[in-house]
Amino acid sequence: MSEAVTEYLQDNKDQLFKKLSDFLKIESISTDPSKKDEMEEAVSFLTDYLTEIGFNKVERKETGGHPLVYAEYTQAGDAPTALFYGHYDVQPADPYELWETEPFQPTIRNGKIYARGASDDKGQVFMHLAVFEAMMKTEGKLPMNVKVVIEGEEEIGSEHLGAFLSENQELLEADFSLISDSGMVDKGVPTILYGLKGFTGLELTVKGPNRDLHSGLYGGAVKNPAMALSQLLAAMKNTDEVVTVPGFYDDVENLSEEERKIMNAAPGEDFPSTTGVPETAPEKGYTAKEHTMARPTLEVNGIFGGYQGEGTKTIIPSSATAKLTCRLVPGQDPQKIQDALVDFIEANTPKGVTVDIKREALSAKAYKVDPKHPLLIKAAESYTSAFEAETVFVRLGGSIPVVETIDSLFGIPVVLLGFGTPEDNLHSPNESFPLEHFSKGMDALALFYRDVKNVM
Amino acid sequence: MSEAVTEYLQDNKDQLFKKLSDFLKIESISTDPSKKDEMEEAVSFLTDYLTEIGFNKVERKETGGHPLVYAEYTQAGDAPTALFYGHYDVQPADPYELWETEPFQPTIRNGKIYARGASDDKGQVFMHLAVFEAMMKTEGKLPMNVKVVIEGEEEIGSEHLGAFLSENQELLEADFSLISDSGMVDKGVPTILYGLKGFTGLELTVKGPNRDLHSGLYGGAVKNPAMALSQLLAAMKNTDEVVTVPGFYDDVENLSEEERKIMNAAPGEDFPSTTGVPETAPEKGYTAKEHTMARPTLEVNGIFGGYQGEGTKTIIPSSATAKLTCRLVPGQDPQKIQDALVDFIEANTPKGVTVDIKREALSAKAYKVDPKHPLLIKAAESYTSAFEAETVFVRLGGSIPVVETIDSLFGIPVVLLGFGTPEDNLHSPNESFPLEHFSKGMDALALFYRDVKNVM
Repeated sequence: MSEAVTEYLQDNKDQLFKKLSDFLKIESISTDPSKKDEMEEAVSFLTDYLTEIGFNKVERKETGGHPLVYAEYTQAGDAPTALFYGHYDVQPADPYELWETEPFQPTIRNGKIYARGASDDKGQVFMHLAVFEAMMKTEGKLPMNVKVVIEGEEEIGSEHLGAFLSENQELLEADFSLISDSGMVDKGVPTILYGLKGFTGLELTVKGPNRDLHSGLYGGAVKNPAMALSQLLAAMKNTDEVVTVPGFYDDVENLSEEERKIMNAAPGEDFPSTTGVPETAPEKGYTAKEHTMARPTLEVNGIFGGYQGEGTKTIIPSSATAKLTCRLVPGQDPQKIQDALVDFIEANTPKGVTVDIKREALSAKAYKVDPKHPLLIKAAESYTSAFEAETVFVRLGGSIPVVETIDSLFGIPVVLLGFGTPEDNLHSPNESFPLEHFSKGMDALALFYRDVKNVM
Repeated sequence: MSEAVTEYLQDNKDQLFKKLSDFLKIESISTDPSKKDEMEEAVSFLTDYLTEIGFNKVERKETGGHPLVYAEYTQAGDAPTALFYGHYDVQPADPYELWETEPFQPTIRNGKIYARGASDDKGQVFMHLAVFEAMMKTEGKLPMNVKVVIEGEEEIGSEHLGAFLSENQELLEADFSLISDSGMVDKGVPTILYGLKGFTGLELTVKGPNRDLHSGLYGGAVKNPAMALSQLLAAMKNTDEVVTVPGFYDDVENLSEEERKIMNAAPGEDFPSTTGVPETAPEKGYTAKEHTMARPTLEVNGIFGGYQGEGTKTIIPSSATAKLTCRLVPGQDPQKIQDALVDFIEANTPKGVTVDIKREALSAKAYKVDPKHPLLIKAAESYTSAFEAETVFVRLGGSIPVVETIDSLFGIPVVLLGFGTPEDNLHSPNESFPLEHFSKGMDALALFYRDVKNVM
């Protein structure tokens, strides 16, 4: 079967690329309230395509937030059932001026496709759909049953996905789950993720005077909210990059020497050369690899207050805001960590100001699966065969909240088949995806689909 | 003479208000490069008005930056010569949405005129010109010689004023200087300033990765520039509101017990009720009044970096910036303080990031004059007579760099006749000026002009 499928994908390359481009052109930015129409457009694209492929049920599902797409192919009889998850929403594209080509006008150069969502996650979702199309066109059927869930809120914390999965457990019953929303440790190096970080966050606004004040007339009388915010943030981490919020590390799983060895042995980025920083800055006692893969983080995602224009404006700003998120490791409870942050902020608010805390809805526990599970071994074989390279097993600093949700609701193994690369510029200007990974990745998926019935 | 002048000002109130409105309508925002035409419009307004009044020389002077207006009336023979200084530029009006009426559409309500520049400094400059007009119309002459300098760069640090004053010392020769660019300690309380703060500042940008990074993939490997900036800023002040930058207090003049008493006895704002802060936050060991009047300050005027939009964006920002200014007291050298800040920043830059420092051109020493000088006593008498209230002598937290420049170049006394009030919202939305202070203030100026020849 696989050969015909591979041939089909090869022969129809141009038409498939055109279709993928249509998908990437849609500005489905979930965090932007003005993009509601574009979100609907992406939903229509997916329901149309899934219907065209031949899924026997295709539905747009209301969620209370952005809608999600559900589809099922249940005609593979006794073959195992896969629950495929992906997301059609993307990150905002600002700062626009740093894009070499338009973020929503997919462009090919240097063997890559450049567009917001090319890797995260529209491009990778599209690969699965294209393989389904190829199998249906060449064989008239799929070698396994598939239930498809593609949501529109991943980049804003999947607020309504949990409820949907929880309320539709019977509908969604499956033998394993399949997700491609991640990357390889390096271009051409097949990578299976066996662990992901959890997530929590909040927005903190320090409020001082009821208006911006003249810094000469009020400096010394009124606490400066931008300074107060800086003091609060600075108090959260020491110079060893250790988070000083009480309780932050309480439930963190210890890192074994064996796992440290595996992590440090895996190929990875040379961070200074890929990001331009003068040197890495991991937590004391850990390497940068260890910290990104297996230690919790606390990051300021944005900070703002007062005058940002040209020149000088001699004011004491009325308020200052920071957006904070944490990546969590197995053992840590997102709610408990968020509470710890809130308690810390309230206990350390300087006198003369007040704080206003928005607890973001998004939060997820970390996830870890046995890297020796037969499904993961089979996936690794398919990868190795298609990419002609050894597959490595790693944990990731990123979060895919749905993995933890599927794990806790369905208790089925989650196979994370990532095809992105460290040069993809996820969440950054000039997001891209290598064309070679499209073709080899689809070959790997076709192999895995074909053989999965033998390991379940 | 004074009665006829007072009558003229009263009889022509409407016409004068119309003229003032025309001046306030001009968006002469010096820090905004797109307002060049408006700056020229303000210059034309002033040269036209000064010509109309009857100044025997009126000129637009190039400075290398925004032009300034020079005018002279030299027909008062042996009478003393005043060097009058003011500025026609204003602060930006953002955030616009907090203005109850348009910042550049002067509006009268509650006995005040609302407009950007109503108090600082167009309104107060206009008072002098209106009194000159009234004297010329009623007496056909002024009781003293006057040299007028009205610049357009006060709100951006008066970069070119120093050179103009220094290169034109002969032209500008005078017996004393006269400035109305300040306020009273309270509405209706005549106030003579005998001390002003100096000024310096810089803009600090912390640079990390060459693009915004995914906080999951890079958190723990790369130092967060917003956190690094917060740590740098927080390190500059301790929880006692004491600046911890080495050398900052080295040359600060000690505050005598006597001066502390005068300061604390002077009427002043109840800061929590005028600004809405929960409590004041002065340097430990000093009252809020003492700190604003006579202790140096370090303020964050603006801070920004990373994502500021709706919702969450899980990035490590590529950079983060803070705008800093200090108000200085007698003894402190602005250059030395700026150097101390730069040294501190460079010595305390966290590893994994670099810093980029823009030294703002603006800087000025603090100023102090003997409060018993006959000119100040005469000014106080004029004030007390017009406002029917005792005049108080205070030092101010604000900076008027030209005062220090005039002091050092010309060695003449500077009389600071302020008519603003603490409720004027200088540099903030809804800047205003009480109508009563216009009329009483002009009466005070007329009296002072009339009598000044008796004390020189």
